[in-house]
Amino acid sequence: MIPVCEGKKLIQETISNNTIIEIEIDKAVGYALANDILAPIHFPSFRQSAMDGYAIRYEDFLKSNCFIIQDEIQAGDNKNIDLEKGKAIRIFTGAKVPDGADTVVQQEHIEITNSKNINIPLATFNSNIRAIGSQCKYNDFILKKGTSLQAGTISLLANLGIEKINVFQKPQICILNTGKELLKLGEPLQDGKVFESNSFSLVHVLKQMHVEVTEIYRVDDDLEKTRTAIEKALTQCNFLFITGGVSVGDYDFVLESLQQNKVEIIFHKLKQKPGKPLLFGQKENKYIFGLPGNPASVLTCFYQYVYPALRQYMGFSSVDLLKINLPISNSYCKKAGLTHFLKAIIHENSVEILDHQESYKMNSFAVANALVEIDAEKEIVEKGELVRAYLLPF
Amino acid sequence: MIPVCEGKKLIQETISNNTIIEIEIDKAVGYALANDILAPIHFPSFRQSAMDGYAIRYEDFLKSNCFIIQDEIQAGDNKNIDLEKGKAIRIFTGAKVPDGADTVVQQEHIEITNSKNINIPLATFNSNIRAIGSQCKYNDFILKKGTSLQAGTISLLANLGIEKINVFQKPQICILNTGKELLKLGEPLQDGKVFESNSFSLVHVLKQMHVEVTEIYRVDDDLEKTRTAIEKALTQCNFLFITGGVSVGDYDFVLESLQQNKVEIIFHKLKQKPGKPLLFGQKENKYIFGLPGNPASVLTCFYQYVYPALRQYMGFSSVDLLKINLPISNSYCKKAGLTHFLKAIIHENSVEILDHQESYKMNSFAVANALVEIDAEKEIVEKGELVRAYLLPF
Repeated sequence: MIPVCEGKKLIQETISNNTIIEIEIDKAVGYALANDILAPIHFPSFRQSAMDGYAIRYEDFLKSNCFIIQDEIQAGDNKNIDLEKGKAIRIFTGAKVPDGADTVVQQEHIEITNSKNINIPLATFNSNIRAIGSQCKYNDFILKKGTSLQAGTISLLANLGIEKINVFQKPQICILNTGKELLKLGEPLQDGKVFESNSFSLVHVLKQMHVEVTEIYRVDDDLEKTRTAIEKALTQCNFLFITGGVSVGDYDFVLESLQQNKVEIIFHKLKQKPGKPLLFGQKENKYIFGLPGNPASVLTCFYQYVYPALRQYMGFSSVDLLKINLPISNSYCKKAGLTHFLKAIIHENSVEILDHQESYKMNSFAVANALVEIDAEKEIVEKGELVRAYLLPF
Repeated sequence: MIPVCEGKKLIQETISNNTIIEIEIDKAVGYALANDILAPIHFPSFRQSAMDGYAIRYEDFLKSNCFIIQDEIQAGDNKNIDLEKGKAIRIFTGAKVPDGADTVVQQEHIEITNSKNINIPLATFNSNIRAIGSQCKYNDFILKKGTSLQAGTISLLANLGIEKINVFQKPQICILNTGKELLKLGEPLQDGKVFESNSFSLVHVLKQMHVEVTEIYRVDDDLEKTRTAIEKALTQCNFLFITGGVSVGDYDFVLESLQQNKVEIIFHKLKQKPGKPLLFGQKENKYIFGLPGNPASVLTCFYQYVYPALRQYMGFSSVDLLKINLPISNSYCKKAGLTHFLKAIIHENSVEILDHQESYKMNSFAVANALVEIDAEKEIVEKGELVRAYLLPF
């Protein structure tokens, strides 16, 4: 049994993915950049008016407040107008400031004398003009490799005329649910059996990450069937998530089946609650997580270990769930020895540990928006103490 | 010009959606529950062993530590075994505890005498048994209408054998980009023009919400073309997002086009920066957002107004982005009068306001994970002061 931080470190040292693909930016949801991005253009690429108003030469304003309207430039106009002395050009937000003009006066600050003349009582030199390259100049460093492609990132890329980007390929994923007690949803409930739910939560959380599942296998607690399913799944995927059968009971065949499939076991069992029996293995460029069977253990292990592993595979520079230290709104006691991950709700000023933390219960996870981590050696957390909260994807 | 909170209130009072559809739980990503859920079964539906170990009658243990192994029950077994006096039944995690047994002793706490006998030095009455209905009893209230269908929620539903649920239908969405200055990505850059980026960020952030866009329209700054595009889009969608043309310049035709289309203007212009010209309108059960043209204004208005509006339409009980009050890591000054929304990064213990807040720049939004709200009347925020941070979807 190794500490949580060692398990995380081992995963981080193991996972790699070098397959880079080129995609169009409108397909980029769920990806991270596979290389740095430099600006292909100055932005803005011309002097832009920041306001609806009048473009003038400031030295003319110092001589007289009266201006003749020479012309008009709309946003998108491509006119080559040279501003004449003592004249003003009507201009709109986003339009190209004409050569010769060095100041744009906001329309709210001028007085219209008649259709051809205006009076400008006040002007500030160089105001309301966005300089060429004021967001970025040609070849400026814009975005780092590993940046998550969010809406803001996509907007910036489009802004700069970038149509295609390199990203790390998403993984192929298989799921294997083990357990003789598992009923398929829709079957009649039988004594001693429970509905299989782990494949549903895994598929769902992967969809939230915009990652699809290739195939789901289901087997009883049987060594040969487990071995065969693992063998087949490993030909189809980069990541295999197995649920159940990873403990040390007489009918837990996952470890043995993995070994028969020549999977190297990187670790098995962590000092944590829930999810103590977690297993992580590797076979060539394929990664295997043996997740405990209880539904809350599965999701906790997913968010703490699988989520970062997948993000690392997909090249994200930040792989963990977003961590925030917040005051706890209720005290919590535990024995020293295991790190606890607790279903919790983040409020505006605090984080609340929920009831029903047992790993077979899902009613707390069903409404939680965070997992709180209490360190292994900690025994009492007092109300108001800062605790580490991991935000669940939403 | 109305305050931010009034704009939000008006949106909240306007949006409604009564179209409920039934979906399978594996299609539930991005939805909220359209009704309360009651438990259709007890869970667990039988007394479950919480450990690998031995099921015994506690009063037998009080008489003797020696037990004969009577039988074995695996998880999933459906045997009707009656525990005999002085005997123990080998049992595994998740298995049905046999009638007569009232205590499960963990395998780590027993001594194996031989293949048929064990010695139990220590036992606690009723331990390691999950009682029937200890997560929930038949007809217990389980989940509230409006609950977001996250992985944990889906797991709970599957657990209880629930295959289908009612959710509010997702909206049909159209986008209309206005502006003579807009180039289509891929076209050669021309003087006075910029690449259209707002449709990309809107499509992307909607995909992050698991909502698709029906159609994207593009028109020049032209009253007739704008009117026609709005007319057509309104026949196809529940939400129309228009970018640009919503200010008061001579070529801003959105307001007039909406009025010609008999759209009721609920508000136009908010006391905020960026995004002052934001417009919200309604025509029957269709909702229209006139978003300013600058890319950072578009996304800010999306996250503050459109995101909650869509979530309300889809029946989520919590509609805003997750709000957390965090200490600011750098001071910030502004004039009183407008609420400021600032691109920011949440760190473990603080939130950092980024440089490049101007609404035509996207380099801060490209890396931000939060928007910080500074109230209209506030002028100085000192380092360390608590500010309201809205988490961007990730």
